[in-house]
Amino acid sequence: MKINSHFLDLKDNYLFSTVGAKTAAYRAAHPEKDVIRLSIGDVTRPLAPVVIEAMRRALDDLSRTETFKGYGPDRYVYAYEPLLASIRDSYARKGVAVSFGEIFVSDGAKSDCGNLLELFSADNTVLIPDPVYPAYLDANIMAGRRIIFADANEGNGFLPMPDESVRPDLIYLCSPNNPTGAAYSRAQLKAWVDYANRLGAVILYDAAYEYFIEDDLPRSIFEIEGARDCAIEICSYSKTAGFTGVRCGYTVIPDTLERGGVKLNRMWARRQSTKFNGVSYVTQMGAAAVFTEEGERQTRENIAYYKRNAAMIGETLSSLGIWYTGGINSPYVWMKCPRGMDSWSFFDYLLENANVVGTPGSGFGKNGEGFFRLTAFATAENTAEACLRLKTILK
Amino acid sequence: MKINSHFLDLKDNYLFSTVGAKTAAYRAAHPEKDVIRLSIGDVTRPLAPVVIEAMRRALDDLSRTETFKGYGPDRYVYAYEPLLASIRDSYARKGVAVSFGEIFVSDGAKSDCGNLLELFSADNTVLIPDPVYPAYLDANIMAGRRIIFADANEGNGFLPMPDESVRPDLIYLCSPNNPTGAAYSRAQLKAWVDYANRLGAVILYDAAYEYFIEDDLPRSIFEIEGARDCAIEICSYSKTAGFTGVRCGYTVIPDTLERGGVKLNRMWARRQSTKFNGVSYVTQMGAAAVFTEEGERQTRENIAYYKRNAAMIGETLSSLGIWYTGGINSPYVWMKCPRGMDSWSFFDYLLENANVVGTPGSGFGKNGEGFFRLTAFATAENTAEACLRLKTILK
Repeated sequence: MKINSHFLDLKDNYLFSTVGAKTAAYRAAHPEKDVIRLSIGDVTRPLAPVVIEAMRRALDDLSRTETFKGYGPDRYVYAYEPLLASIRDSYARKGVAVSFGEIFVSDGAKSDCGNLLELFSADNTVLIPDPVYPAYLDANIMAGRRIIFADANEGNGFLPMPDESVRPDLIYLCSPNNPTGAAYSRAQLKAWVDYANRLGAVILYDAAYEYFIEDDLPRSIFEIEGARDCAIEICSYSKTAGFTGVRCGYTVIPDTLERGGVKLNRMWARRQSTKFNGVSYVTQMGAAAVFTEEGERQTRENIAYYKRNAAMIGETLSSLGIWYTGGINSPYVWMKCPRGMDSWSFFDYLLENANVVGTPGSGFGKNGEGFFRLTAFATAENTAEACLRLKTILK
Repeated sequence: MKINSHFLDLKDNYLFSTVGAKTAAYRAAHPEKDVIRLSIGDVTRPLAPVVIEAMRRALDDLSRTETFKGYGPDRYVYAYEPLLASIRDSYARKGVAVSFGEIFVSDGAKSDCGNLLELFSADNTVLIPDPVYPAYLDANIMAGRRIIFADANEGNGFLPMPDESVRPDLIYLCSPNNPTGAAYSRAQLKAWVDYANRLGAVILYDAAYEYFIEDDLPRSIFEIEGARDCAIEICSYSKTAGFTGVRCGYTVIPDTLERGGVKLNRMWARRQSTKFNGVSYVTQMGAAAVFTEEGERQTRENIAYYKRNAAMIGETLSSLGIWYTGGINSPYVWMKCPRGMDSWSFFDYLLENANVVGTPGSGFGKNGEGFFRLTAFATAENTAEACLRLKTILK
């Protein structure tokens, strides 16, 4: 009996527990202070009424013999057709054609970002941006893959571009990015797609934050010519529609995406049929309401709320002359720590002097050192107050 | 770029699609016939009222800012404490002590049965009963593991025992078994536990049907001395509480279970934190209602309904002198095909002469040839009518 020894290569990530512990210690020592958390990486607005209503009706279905639903339909790997139709229609509004057999409904982007690796040989080399959402790195360490990094930094606006001197087999991209909020342009994404097609690599494109895009930036990698031959797109209702506690996402694997003569969507269908049993009927019916006309309207109200917060933080930093990315097409603002402070020094400085909590950038990769993440998920009132305090201590 | 070539070793499993196609063809040719499906492997009774009520309240929580829930709590890998407490209490009623840190809530037993393999080296040898639920085999083929089989047959009552001539690292057991309905006794399970402890192997114990047990048989492998040093138990609300469309299960990994000096529950916590984001808050609150006093009462009513059907089928076969397993501690009845017919010949014979649909045993493994699965998930009326027809054509 041997365990998977690659688990021993994982580093313990104490980022959020240390943030929590330091914040708690400060609060205990200063109970009179009003501490504001701009470190929240989770939505805080309630589900849209149209979603709640759809879920209530689904629950009613499960309460009666005549309308009861067991396992989801086999045909589309447990996804119900109304949900698939709503996803297809949402893509059509971006000018992207996808068919039911290309859409796979899952319990969230994080699951798919990790599990999709099973389709590929452990012998592949994977390219991961630095800094980035830590789950990509850890899932690949667990599988024992060779990992190379794409350096994101102030110089490239935290949007690294292809490096012709390396030959990855798998490429993770996240746009708009977590934690930096930076989002690729069409020309930049086209360069990645062309690079992947030249190498025969597959791009795993995490589009979890695409609903925050307002500029003329691509919301789907499939808006880019050639992407259907090299890309898998992973989407989520989590930040789009406040589903972090409801759990639903979807992944698109084009029918044209083949490697080794095998269609990757057929492999994924087999993987999911064997090791997954679909998403709750109640959740699927709620998700299907998100991309209806009324659902989009209500969903965009919540996103607009967060985006006003993000804009407020961005304007504050601009007025202070502090360099940052994000804040426009993202709920995240990624700022350069002022006065040459490192990430944790700025964390302490901000907590002690402004009673504002953020997240040290060094927790997202080595290139995050000297940077700091603020998020738009607090209330508008608290965000405004935090911005006032930032202006006071950093002006 | 190389794909995971082990996927090419998977056999296409047309069992259920062939059953469906043959049934549809017969119905089309004989629209006047009343075809009864005893092939259903899915629950058909609605959720218990107490579960629906708990899910409604949870949905209300998600509709208001003050009570909204996002990501589940980090502390127990996204599981809410009321759910963990109800699972702990349910174990306590079986005389088994488990702590919160040993319980992992998942979206279902199938996911865990496959994903748990990630904790172990691909270089291990895995022992799988034949016949059995096909997902164990396919998940191991995908990972490229060496697979050996434990032969289940009429001679051992479809309850294979340890073979001292082989040395597996991982052992799948499923009791009560799908598809055979056979369930291990305490003495038999003790032999498996002792064998695993001698070899240093780990048992993956699928207890998805434990709520159907009524005899004095173990409902948890942790009722057996020594199991905490060698076993992982995988449980599900699917068949227990009709959650096949709701998706919730739980897996217990004892704190005492270590291999290579590493606690397996710590490895699993890291795996789930990296590649999973927990179960819907609504689902968790519904599941937490299942093991309350009123929840157990309502849940057992539904199970009793299915068990009366199973008993009816069993009594019918007994009266016909047909050998079978299951029917008592399981929703499945596994019968020997009469008159020396093979599984598919009996399928055709039964469909054409009794208009009853079942599942050919050969679809669950080579030792299933000559056997046939009937299930208890139809209505009581249809089950009674099917039994009458069986008596007519097989007497």
